[in-house]
Amino acid sequence: MSRTDIAAVNRSFQEAAQKRDPDRIAALYTADAIVMPPDAPFVKGRDNIQQLWGSAIQQMGLKDVKLNTLDLEVVGDTAYEVGEAVLTLQSGGATFKYVVVWKKVDGQWRLHRDIWNTTGA
Amino acid sequence: MSRTDIAAVNRSFQEAAQKRDPDRIAALYTADAIVMPPDAPFVKGRDNIQQLWGSAIQQMGLKDVKLNTLDLEVVGDTAYEVGEAVLTLQSGGATFKYVVVWKKVDGQWRLHRDIWNTTGA
Repeated sequence: MSRTDIAAVNRSFQEAAQKRDPDRIAALYTADAIVMPPDAPFVKGRDNIQQLWGSAIQQMGLKDVKLNTLDLEVVGDTAYEVGEAVLTLQSGGATFKYVVVWKKVDGQWRLHRDIWNTTGA
Repeated sequence: MSRTDIAAVNRSFQEAAQKRDPDRIAALYTADAIVMPPDAPFVKGRDNIQQLWGSAIQQMGLKDVKLNTLDLEVVGDTAYEVGEAVLTLQSGGATFKYVVVWKKVDGQWRLHRDIWNTTGA
């Protein structure tokens, strides 16, 4: 079931962040994924995505990610999710809104487009 | 053609912003749309979206929006777009990355999920 599979990938994302493993995080994205972090340019492809999460882990001291899906619609081999992410950083906690467009490639759901921003005070 | 239709809605969005008409902007969204502006909570439904764009026009002095589609994939009655938006505000120009999930409702493409963040320096 697509919803269960996507939820499992989100759990893998959380576990990879807890293990501070940017390679494992990057492997959850499609080969041509685009990630859009705030205050930064577009990040395209797994190598750059690996570097992005590596920087987040090293420079921002990312320790934990909690992903809370608020809305998920599946359309064939595409799905889009709206959610809230709580990140634990060296500086404390930070809450973000996010949209992920998912794509099923070779039977595996992967993050294909990933964008987030802050929720404000 | 879906791509042409979506491009036409983006042009309507730009024209409505130039005319400083938040009602017209809100009408381009689905009834159950979710908009996710930076540093703010989720904005759900046309009334709240109308207020959001009304505030942007009045408080931030939004005068113009240029939408530049970088990627658009259509899957049946759903589509997702990655783009860059250049806003002209009272304080000057601002560039944003965005993702819009589009939904075709009653034969009309509408913005269904809309999230953006800054591109940084």
